[in-house]
Amino acid sequence: DPKIKLFSLNSNQPLAQEIAKEIGVELGKCAVHRFSDGEIQINIEESVRGCNVYVIQSTSQPVNENLMELLIMIDALKRASAKTINIVMPYYGYARQDRKARAREPITAKLVANLLETAGATRVLTLDLHAPQIQGFFDIPIDHLMGVPILSDYFKNRELNGDIVVVSPDHGGVTRARKMAERLKAPIAIIDKRRPRPNVAEVMNIVGNIEGKIAILIDDIIDTAGTITLAANALVENGAKEVYASCTHPVLSGPAIERIQNSKIKELVVTNSIALPEEKKIEKIKSLSVAPLIAEAIIRIHEEQSVSTLFD
Amino acid sequence: DPKIKLFSLNSNQPLAQEIAKEIGVELGKCAVHRFSDGEIQINIEESVRGCNVYVIQSTSQPVNENLMELLIMIDALKRASAKTINIVMPYYGYARQDRKARAREPITAKLVANLLETAGATRVLTLDLHAPQIQGFFDIPIDHLMGVPILSDYFKNRELNGDIVVVSPDHGGVTRARKMAERLKAPIAIIDKRRPRPNVAEVMNIVGNIEGKIAILIDDIIDTAGTITLAANALVENGAKEVYASCTHPVLSGPAIERIQNSKIKELVVTNSIALPEEKKIEKIKSLSVAPLIAEAIIRIHEEQSVSTLFD
Ligand SMILES: Nc1ncnc2c1ncn2[C@@H]1O[C@H](COP(=O)(O)O)[C@@H](O)[C@H]1O
Ligand SMILES: Nc1ncnc2c1ncn2[C@@H]1O[C@H](COP(=O)(O)O)[C@@H](O)[C@H]1O
Repeated sequence: DPKIKLFSLNSNQPLAQEIAKEIGVELGKCAVHRFSDGEIQINIEESVRGCNVYVIQSTSQPVNENLMELLIMIDALKRASAKTINIVMPYYGYARQDRKARAREPITAKLVANLLETAGATRVLTLDLHAPQIQGFFDIPIDHLMGVPILSDYFKNRELNGDIVVVSPDHGGVTRARKMAERLKAPIAIIDKRRPRPNVAEVMNIVGNIEGKIAILIDDIIDTAGTITLAANALVENGAKEVYASCTHPVLSGPAIERIQNSKIKELVVTNSIALPEEKKIEKIKSLSVAPLIAEAIIRIHEEQSVSTLFD
Repeated sequence: DPKIKLFSLNSNQPLAQEIAKEIGVELGKCAVHRFSDGEIQINIEESVRGCNVYVIQSTSQPVNENLMELLIMIDALKRASAKTINIVMPYYGYARQDRKARAREPITAKLVANLLETAGATRVLTLDLHAPQIQGFFDIPIDHLMGVPILSDYFKNRELNGDIVVVSPDHGGVTRARKMAERLKAPIAIIDKRRPRPNVAEVMNIVGNIEGKIAILIDDIIDTAGTITLAANALVENGAKEVYASCTHPVLSGPAIERIQNSKIKELVVTNSIALPEEKKIEKIKSLSVAPLIAEAIIRIHEEQSVSTLFD
């Protein structure tokens, strides 16, 4: 009977600690260092022979460092005779490079899938892929968890005082907004950005009724926060009573924090799929833990049960 | 008749420019940028359909960034229907992680080979691998050039005033020292580091006659420069008249420059396999170009001639 062995690399240690606690195991011992020239050195400090190993690593910023750490760890586990090598990537970096938008572009999300398999991953567990099609980039089993239930439950329990409308900041996110709306028994609205003529500023056209309502914006990733803060301000200008925003993956790069601070967003609700450094832990941002969800998924995978019922 | 298409990524643009000039072609147009969150964005800006493409990229510091740039570029070239994708890696990063020295260690030099092949490389051209066995990590053709002739010719032409002895800083490098010694028609010596008892400082024992001679140390990589500067000082203390040092790959990380400045090394001769940033371009360091060698190898590969005769 193989045992669960959980290892954490460097990108999201607090989440890994929480997951280990939920499952009731200790994190495995492994040393991840940098040589003087920046090359990564990994040594696994306990036997993994015959074990089901779970490696927790989000490929968030610095994405290339975190990805290489993961690939080198997989190589080490494979050579150390692990029975299965299960990659837990709460945030899947490069997911937005999932198609050739222009000629002669790479499809880096597919490259990442190939690299993980080549290194020796036998299974992947991830959360809210930018495009669900990325599941098809893998030839090994992949489990795809959803952040919507966690985000929705938060707003449900918050007992907001007024009528709610769930808003998608673009057409691409309507399915996600629909899912949250169903859980909150609320209607949806969509922000329809249009450029009337070339070289003219985009107009934020709101499809749906938001007048006097509490608007909850939902997206998968908030990166530089340009889209979401413009959307929030447009909602307020068009009569929304209050605006909340939410996303699964708080990338929050570049001007994101400043934009959020200066925006009409009352509260931004995110998950800990990506660890927030201290300077990004501002009062307006509320972080919810995905540790119980991921822990449950790991236990089910380990016991060879279906993970899909986790979404009910 | 397919054309040579040369592309340079970011790690060693000056060398790539020189190689292009030697061959008599322009570097291909490609845009390599970073998104706000640090993800790499590559767009190839001219057709490569049916071409023999050569991508010049050393995986020197920052190694993980440079390696990912290379992998993403290969993916883009493959999808753009290049006929062959030839990787020119003057410096092969992670080459020192070429075996399991301890239990449960990765073999990252092999991982890198697998990643390059998975991305779509069809051939590799490199220079002075830390271990020639790394050639066997590839299932695609690999050409392995040598820095010794270039370094030897420099010392031959310098007309040093006295008897020369070529010194290997450790047993691992004796073959390399032998090759330089043959070219300079000089004898060799070896530094035999020994720790007399545990927790006692290493003793530098010199095997061979260096008394009153001009010693030329040769190594493949100089990284933190600990070994080479201790060796140089030991040579002077033991009666060498002057000490020169040479290597193919000037990694020069951490305290390297300070150590070299403060050492008994009169001149350090390196190649431009790794681009030196301004702060490392000190007077004591002389850099020789491998551009003519690499240009010649590229032309031979393109014309489907043997590269091995380049060593004669
Ligand atoms: N890391 C990134 N940061 C910003 N934009 C990106 C990033 N990766 C990919 N993209 C671009 O984002 C777009 C994908 O967004 P979407 O249309 O929402 O799927 C593509 O045009 C990509 O070129
Ligand atoms: N980037 C690096 N910097 C310093 N030491 C390294 C690096 N990569 C590997 N090593 C170590 O260097 C040794 C290989 O050196 P060698 O015995 O000369 O082949 C191994 O013990 C490695 O663990």
